[in-house]
Amino acid sequence: MKPELNIFKIGGGIIDHELDLQGFLRQFSVISGPKILVHGGGKGASEMLTRLGIAPRMVDGRRITDAVTLDLVTMFYAGKTNKQIVAYLQSKGVNALGLSGADGNIIKAVKRPVREVDYGFVGDLSEKSVDAELLHQFLQLQLTPVLCPINHDGHGQLLNTNADTIAASVAKALSKKYAVKLHFCFEKRGVLADVADGDSVIAKITLADYVVLKESGIIADGMLPKLENAFDALQFGVEKVIIEHALQINGDVKTTLCLT
Amino acid sequence: MKPELNIFKIGGGIIDHELDLQGFLRQFSVISGPKILVHGGGKGASEMLTRLGIAPRMVDGRRITDAVTLDLVTMFYAGKTNKQIVAYLQSKGVNALGLSGADGNIIKAVKRPVREVDYGFVGDLSEKSVDAELLHQFLQLQLTPVLCPINHDGHGQLLNTNADTIAASVAKALSKKYAVKLHFCFEKRGVLADVADGDSVIAKITLADYVVLKESGIIADGMLPKLENAFDALQFGVEKVIIEHALQINGDVKTTLCLT
Repeated sequence: MKPELNIFKIGGGIIDHELDLQGFLRQFSVISGPKILVHGGGKGASEMLTRLGIAPRMVDGRRITDAVTLDLVTMFYAGKTNKQIVAYLQSKGVNALGLSGADGNIIKAVKRPVREVDYGFVGDLSEKSVDAELLHQFLQLQLTPVLCPINHDGHGQLLNTNADTIAASVAKALSKKYAVKLHFCFEKRGVLADVADGDSVIAKITLADYVVLKESGIIADGMLPKLENAFDALQFGVEKVIIEHALQINGDVKTTLCLT
Repeated sequence: MKPELNIFKIGGGIIDHELDLQGFLRQFSVISGPKILVHGGGKGASEMLTRLGIAPRMVDGRRITDAVTLDLVTMFYAGKTNKQIVAYLQSKGVNALGLSGADGNIIKAVKRPVREVDYGFVGDLSEKSVDAELLHQFLQLQLTPVLCPINHDGHGQLLNTNADTIAASVAKALSKKYAVKLHFCFEKRGVLADVADGDSVIAKITLADYVVLKESGIIADGMLPKLENAFDALQFGVEKVIIEHALQINGDVKTTLCLT
């Protein structure tokens, strides 16, 4: 039987609130067995751009990662946020190892091809992007990898990738060696049947349920790509995907996704 | 016989010039056998403070690492500089692993005690600061650690330490397992007998020579702490310390320091 591996992903909504972040990290620190944390960004880089008087470049409502933005997200995600998380986890007895995808060549991406829009220095991942063997070696050394969403193209260029995508890709790659539980943690207790009602958490969603919920419009907006990533991960061998509140990862109320 | 390990330290004078940095990294990439790179800062953090309209706090000509400064040096040293170096080395076939001292608890420091001056978030190192065993494990995995000068106190606080001190401490800690050659690389070809003459490189300096050169004033200013670190490292088991030009690490003209 494969050993269990828990992979947690936290996003900007938690990272931007220091006490929430520390609350999550304390709960994360007591999870037993091998584990990995993937973190997203936060508002820091955008706020710094504003303070420097640089307007973010947007196309169709989406941020373009130009060279200045890449520098700033690298500084915030791989520098400040990653190292603050690592130092806090160390203080709680977790031997955290902060990593970008460039470190140890853990994640190699391809710069998104320019079609109608040039998204800039954004990295797309493929099946071969993640070095599961080296992550396994780190886990064997009792280390807890803490991955930021910066990776590289193998030719010296850093790239920025959506953290949900990174978490799902890492989960898929490690599911050959581990029974992986992938946890998407955010500011709600799960997928809601009614966005206005925080208590309307759907306990379980199968792939068939998902198709219905999507067509009915109950699952929409930002939740769609998250669930697409989740079901993709399940189809590639991840055992379970859980969507839960970052401050209640030990609680009972959450959404579990499975294929059937 | 212990295996050879080369540890290189580069400072801000190289980091601030992209072509010089890449020139050094290309030479570093072809050094065979296990190796470690320690890098200092550069002007980026200071320039950003200026752009943000924050005056650096200085006491007796020395920068105070207050909370804002710590954030910025963490962003630049552990984020931008470290990841750019790692990505470049990856493109040259070196499996670089960027690390702060917090990562894997590689270097645990103590915040400098407040005496006449409060230097802020500056970390002092002791004999027990460096986890040589984990660095050895990384080297066994064919990884090349790239250390930035940010570390932590084990209680969740990041700290900033002089990169020469980090290089010397890492060299000392690893000298139990390896025959360590410690290279301090900068913009001159070695220790100069006449600062005005770049060709006046002293080929070899023993501890006895050093005492004479220091008393005569030939070695002064910034070179003094570098050589103090160097002889300290030699006294704690480091085999050889070399002071050389960052762009001529394969050259013949350099200063070699040894005890006798």
